[in-house]
Amino acid sequence: MELFTAIKERRAIKHFDNNAKIPETDFTQIMESVLLSPTSYNIQHWRFVRVKEAHLKQQIKEAAWGQQQIEDASELIVLCADTQAWSDRPERYWANADESTQNMLVPMLQDFYRDKPEMQRDEGMRSCGMAAQTLMLSAKALGYDTCPMVGFEHDAVAELVKLPKDHLVGMIIVMGKAAKTAHSRGGQLPLSEVLVDNTF
Amino acid sequence: MELFTAIKERRAIKHFDNNAKIPETDFTQIMESVLLSPTSYNIQHWRFVRVKEAHLKQQIKEAAWGQQQIEDASELIVLCADTQAWSDRPERYWANADESTQNMLVPMLQDFYRDKPEMQRDEGMRSCGMAAQTLMLSAKALGYDTCPMVGFEHDAVAELVKLPKDHLVGMIIVMGKAAKTAHSRGGQLPLSEVLVDNTF
Repeated sequence: MELFTAIKERRAIKHFDNNAKIPETDFTQIMESVLLSPTSYNIQHWRFVRVKEAHLKQQIKEAAWGQQQIEDASELIVLCADTQAWSDRPERYWANADESTQNMLVPMLQDFYRDKPEMQRDEGMRSCGMAAQTLMLSAKALGYDTCPMVGFEHDAVAELVKLPKDHLVGMIIVMGKAAKTAHSRGGQLPLSEVLVDNTF
Repeated sequence: MELFTAIKERRAIKHFDNNAKIPETDFTQIMESVLLSPTSYNIQHWRFVRVKEAHLKQQIKEAAWGQQQIEDASELIVLCADTQAWSDRPERYWANADESTQNMLVPMLQDFYRDKPEMQRDEGMRSCGMAAQTLMLSAKALGYDTCPMVGFEHDAVAELVKLPKDHLVGMIIVMGKAAKTAHSRGGQLPLSEVLVDNTF
């Protein structure tokens, strides 16, 4: 699908066909595309939980105040991030680079994140956001719909997916076949209201 | 451009043609696409600063430890977010919805963000991330390249763009014509290393 068409047609869908299945090849193509999204210093600190078990889905739905799309969509993905990925064998993020680049970048990225918990958290959210948009557009291009979600008890979902220490839950995306189209866009702000030249 | 091509071909470019200009119609098409990225409760809290003045670019380059792409790229955009957008005339985010939907959503979104500074900040970073990926893919589809940047003194850049109270700086994206292609990808983690089923 043409990129601008995917951008226009991607909408947050709340009603999914609960019989639809996404073939594994499509799921893999979508996730492999997600992995081409950028991360700072290539730390690839995103972690994805694909929730398949019906009982676990049910529990996550309860932690999301009963939102039905969690149960009905074909796939439920919890986007997480390892806030300490920068210190976990960082040489692997630059394994293909030449030695001098490695010797420069690996200590640099560690200095960049060390002792900066707010930056570590912000980076997790930013990277989940970039990955999320790649996921939603890729799904759209293959004929699926998605719903990005932040409305859930983050601590409860963290416990349900057994989130490791030093990881965070960024958001949830459900994906499947729409059973009902989205309403018109709610009320879009014009570009002039959100774009300024040079300074605010 | 086909979506998956744009995803594959988007790379962080460090060397830009400093004579290239992006026609205004292309810039507008890219930014109008960005505005179709999702935000939670449609709060559209992103704010974009398009830095055009050469002297201001120079100062931002200094705040980014001299990274040359800031000066050489055709466009420099600072992605920000208004962390209090949820409380600023929120009825406008649902102006097109019917009255009962408005009456439900507007108080709901205010309750969701009120007194939750970490959630407000996280949301800004997530939304900047989703918008950033739309921006970079849209640029690619029109034949431009980009570099997403977080390596800069955030407080210094905030001061330079006169960031209002309660706003945050998410990241910088520069955009233009590549003068040098990117190296091969640094060292990509396989999907099996970042995707788990059900629980960690």
